[in-house]
Amino acid sequence: MFAPPIAPINWENGRVALIDQTLLPLEVKKIYPETVEEMWSAIRRLQVRGAPAIGIAAAFGLYLAVRGAESKEDFYLQLERAAAYLATARPTAVNLFWALERVKAAAKAVPDLSLAQLKERVLSEALALQQEDEAMCLAIGRHGAPLLAGLTAVLTHCNAGTLATARYGTALAPVYYLAGQGKLLHVFADETRPLLQGARLTAWELKQVGIPVTLITDSMAAVVMQKKMVQAVIVGADRIAANGDVANKIGTYGLAILAHEHGLPFYVAAPSSTFDASLASGEEIPIEERGPEEITHFGNRRTAPEGIAVYNPAFDVTPARYITAIITEKGVLKPPYKESISNYLK
Amino acid sequence: MFAPPIAPINWENGRVALIDQTLLPLEVKKIYPETVEEMWSAIRRLQVRGAPAIGIAAAFGLYLAVRGAESKEDFYLQLERAAAYLATARPTAVNLFWALERVKAAAKAVPDLSLAQLKERVLSEALALQQEDEAMCLAIGRHGAPLLAGLTAVLTHCNAGTLATARYGTALAPVYYLAGQGKLLHVFADETRPLLQGARLTAWELKQVGIPVTLITDSMAAVVMQKKMVQAVIVGADRIAANGDVANKIGTYGLAILAHEHGLPFYVAAPSSTFDASLASGEEIPIEERGPEEITHFGNRRTAPEGIAVYNPAFDVTPARYITAIITEKGVLKPPYKESISNYLK
Repeated sequence: MFAPPIAPINWENGRVALIDQTLLPLEVKKIYPETVEEMWSAIRRLQVRGAPAIGIAAAFGLYLAVRGAESKEDFYLQLERAAAYLATARPTAVNLFWALERVKAAAKAVPDLSLAQLKERVLSEALALQQEDEAMCLAIGRHGAPLLAGLTAVLTHCNAGTLATARYGTALAPVYYLAGQGKLLHVFADETRPLLQGARLTAWELKQVGIPVTLITDSMAAVVMQKKMVQAVIVGADRIAANGDVANKIGTYGLAILAHEHGLPFYVAAPSSTFDASLASGEEIPIEERGPEEITHFGNRRTAPEGIAVYNPAFDVTPARYITAIITEKGVLKPPYKESISNYLK
Repeated sequence: MFAPPIAPINWENGRVALIDQTLLPLEVKKIYPETVEEMWSAIRRLQVRGAPAIGIAAAFGLYLAVRGAESKEDFYLQLERAAAYLATARPTAVNLFWALERVKAAAKAVPDLSLAQLKERVLSEALALQQEDEAMCLAIGRHGAPLLAGLTAVLTHCNAGTLATARYGTALAPVYYLAGQGKLLHVFADETRPLLQGARLTAWELKQVGIPVTLITDSMAAVVMQKKMVQAVIVGADRIAANGDVANKIGTYGLAILAHEHGLPFYVAAPSSTFDASLASGEEIPIEERGPEEITHFGNRRTAPEGIAVYNPAFDVTPARYITAIITEKGVLKPPYKESISNYLK
């Protein structure tokens, strides 16, 4: 399959390497977290971001926490502490908690292992998560491609591409899949304020492989639909409740309404690690609020007056009724989602 | 009435003074265009912006063009040339063309005037336009206030306040009017990408007079409505067609759909100078497209990759069916707009 050559997380010679996504597109620079604290900070500061990628990074973070353990007792203590700590890095994407549980369970599955074997098992589970995510994204691309085949252009929000996953992306996976078949779909990327993941990341990764991309502000999505410049919207997800409600980057909910009003399909693409069957609806999903300076400043430069209030939720919840289909690694889920998601997760 | 102390355009000791709105909120600095070319540039570069303010500034621009005329023949030649030239500064707001025609007509109404009297007449017409706009905005405030009275918060887009008019604003006029009665309405200002007029101008002018304001990104409008944090949306306009379709700052159309979907009233506030009865519908309104660097750069700093396409329309057209009412200086217009606008303009 066709995809950008640069994966956001790499295990290199005994070190975990992250592309520092806060520096893109001006600079492609790797950072090498050495401690669980450094990994926590990289997740919190969005040097690594995107729900699936956060999960993978956290799994490697657990390895950083336990690799220096001097006894099995110490190993399990560090593992639990690090998992609890990493879980506080960001609240919304469920892939983070899912990945931490997966690694903890792997480390506990065979109690008779030696300390060295336990450490090795944590690392191999992190690597397995990364490989599985890559395979899931590939499958999302394969299942999603027929939905987009024949269209000339789609709109996407934030970055749900290679940079948000192990590789291939979620929302962009069908675009890459079609590109691999020689079908270049035009992608409209909205810039995604406040942190410009669409402008900085999506536009950049698509351009790496020659997929045509047009950048717009978030506020231009409606007119792009009105003028029939796109024929579908496709986004990723940070958490999907049992009823199909989707938490995703702030702005997604508005796009879903606009697509609905213009009669355009609205697709969500996500692997099984993004589903949270424990939540009946999206109302229960915790939504991260971030600092006001993301909106009042640009870099170090203030752009809004001092002393005003700011509301800065990083995510919103799109009710399932606006979602045409959810594209997963096992196939395409359709309404009623309560049933289709329940069957999918069985 | 309650309003910010700073008007955007002032006639001071024989000079026209503009607040340079590109520098707000970091710096409050006046510029003094001395020639019609400098006024054209101030309008084009958005140092003065907002449909009514553009019209007033252009009227003063005509005076700058004719004040050095050495004969009546030269006066009329300069007047026509300057009007044609200023009309090219920006294409969408009809107030610009309306104001130029008003001043030209005033200069031609009494052919027996002396050269000095003709020049004086151009200046007095510009000053009259400014005074009329102030009175119209005050009346918009009075007519709009009952629609917003009793609400706790409204959402506005871009800047349709004092800084966009002679004083009092259009969309913000009812907010100031209510404030004058001791009723402080909370205003949610969306930042209005790409040029951040909401963050830089609306938040700033409201804060000047102590009206509570919360800044959000454009992409947060939907969630603010979903959570019932606002009970109405109110915006200005750059041109209103005979059928009630409204051209306004990019993003307005999307907000109108979101308000519709959430069952919230969507109000447009504009003086008679913003109506263009010569256009049957909004499809005929010319929409300005601006340079890609407004989206790919922030200040001088590039934020998007090089070599990508950008779509940057500065305005969009909201179909009349999404507009609950249009608040004018003579009263509140309701659907069907073809009739109510026709009666209003009689």
